[in-house]
Amino acid sequence: MEGNGRIRLLVAYDGSAYVGWQVQPNGPSVQAAIEAAFERLTGSAGRARAASRTDAGVHALGQVVVLDEPGRHGPEVVRKGLNALLPDDIVVREAELAPPGFDPRHSACGKHYRYSFHNDRVPPLFRRGQRWHIRAPLDLESMQRACAHLQGEHDFSAFRAAGCEAKSPVRRIDRIGLVRDGSLLALDVLGRAFLKQMVRNLAGTLVDVGRGRLSPEGLRGLLLGRDRTRAGRCAPAKGLCLVRVFYEPDAYRRAVEGEAGPAGGDLFSL
Amino acid sequence: MEGNGRIRLLVAYDGSAYVGWQVQPNGPSVQAAIEAAFERLTGSAGRARAASRTDAGVHALGQVVVLDEPGRHGPEVVRKGLNALLPDDIVVREAELAPPGFDPRHSACGKHYRYSFHNDRVPPLFRRGQRWHIRAPLDLESMQRACAHLQGEHDFSAFRAAGCEAKSPVRRIDRIGLVRDGSLLALDVLGRAFLKQMVRNLAGTLVDVGRGRLSPEGLRGLLLGRDRTRAGRCAPAKGLCLVRVFYEPDAYRRAVEGEAGPAGGDLFSL
Repeated sequence: MEGNGRIRLLVAYDGSAYVGWQVQPNGPSVQAAIEAAFERLTGSAGRARAASRTDAGVHALGQVVVLDEPGRHGPEVVRKGLNALLPDDIVVREAELAPPGFDPRHSACGKHYRYSFHNDRVPPLFRRGQRWHIRAPLDLESMQRACAHLQGEHDFSAFRAAGCEAKSPVRRIDRIGLVRDGSLLALDVLGRAFLKQMVRNLAGTLVDVGRGRLSPEGLRGLLLGRDRTRAGRCAPAKGLCLVRVFYEPDAYRRAVEGEAGPAGGDLFSL
Repeated sequence: MEGNGRIRLLVAYDGSAYVGWQVQPNGPSVQAAIEAAFERLTGSAGRARAASRTDAGVHALGQVVVLDEPGRHGPEVVRKGLNALLPDDIVVREAELAPPGFDPRHSACGKHYRYSFHNDRVPPLFRRGQRWHIRAPLDLESMQRACAHLQGEHDFSAFRAAGCEAKSPVRRIDRIGLVRDGSLLALDVLGRAFLKQMVRNLAGTLVDVGRGRLSPEGLRGLLLGRDRTRAGRCAPAKGLCLVRVFYEPDAYRRAVEGEAGPAGGDLFSL
């Protein structure tokens, strides 16, 4: 098959070894790894652009990336070739021609992030790189009630990282909830856009609720107080994963309404 | 609680970084790591003995280990203390006083090993250290028929590693079968004892069956031929895991008969 233009990739990665998606002077980035493999494959340098600039140590199951392929290789050749050239902590799951005018960031209508806890007295083993270990029992019901206060449009200044460059602290969470499956406790958050470290700051504060150190109403007070210094700690990056980026409003609406929502089981079947 | 003698541990480990269970001159072993942590905890050097000497790179969910604790620490203190001192790729799941006369190896009446394949055109990511990637579609039905030829007591010389020191090549497989769950294809093998690399040699040859390069009857011919040089390759260590060691004949019988047999889902919830 002849290539003809812009290729859209569905990319998964284990973020443990990376400074994040974006090229940085201080270490290896997922973007640089993909651009280097693409240049080796096609002979032409190209800029990879992604739906989300995931932070250092954050994982992805469904990052969406576009690359301009000037000619010779079709999507399936690009997928196989990149997987052969990339390190084994980055995997191209799918490749296709991008629709006209497609932009991975601006065309997105929603994103699904999952924060995963390992909630057990015994530490995690095979999942230790993808879960935050919380030894103490967490009260799921209190955490769910706290989540209800977070849903909807709010000023999330209390959960915004220092250095966040967004103009407005107002964001809308379309769906937020927890599922438990054995030792896994997963926090699913869906929205159009988030502030810097917002999901991890919410995860850290929800642990305080689950441990009984903060009531659900106390979390609501923190939200209304808009003071970052009063909310809980930022949860470690390794628990966070970009699960999916939505470009079809209908598919996003179904996910928000739970019809095609996150499964209770393990998303990390890769 | 006062300690009084022999402590039995249920240990899980990610074998990637180890030369195997047993202390070796050429690299770190799980045994040495546990003995070092135990000495730091109790102040007394002790020899750790295990149910199975897993090979380099092989994992365990249910290795059984005994240690002699001369006095001060009870099992729960030992469990917590070891988990605090051990590297994060070794986890003590349970600890209890060993019954009188208990020997982790000789008291065992059965073992359950699982070999895990990632059978998909897309490579594995988060499970890449615990699964062997087979890109080509595998025919589960042919593999199941081949497994039927392996069940029972046989001379397994064709699947015995060079350097195997067992006196007899005869072993009895009490249960062997495959389960599929998405991209995971798992080979479960239960028996009292196995030859060196026997499960991995079986796994490698079963892949030949699944790819159509060898018929189930052809595998039976290899078994009867007793010639190691004719059977398939040895499957990589990373796919193998010691799931459970049985000391209660009734529990083992139930596992063999499938009443408490291996789940189709993912055993690696740790």
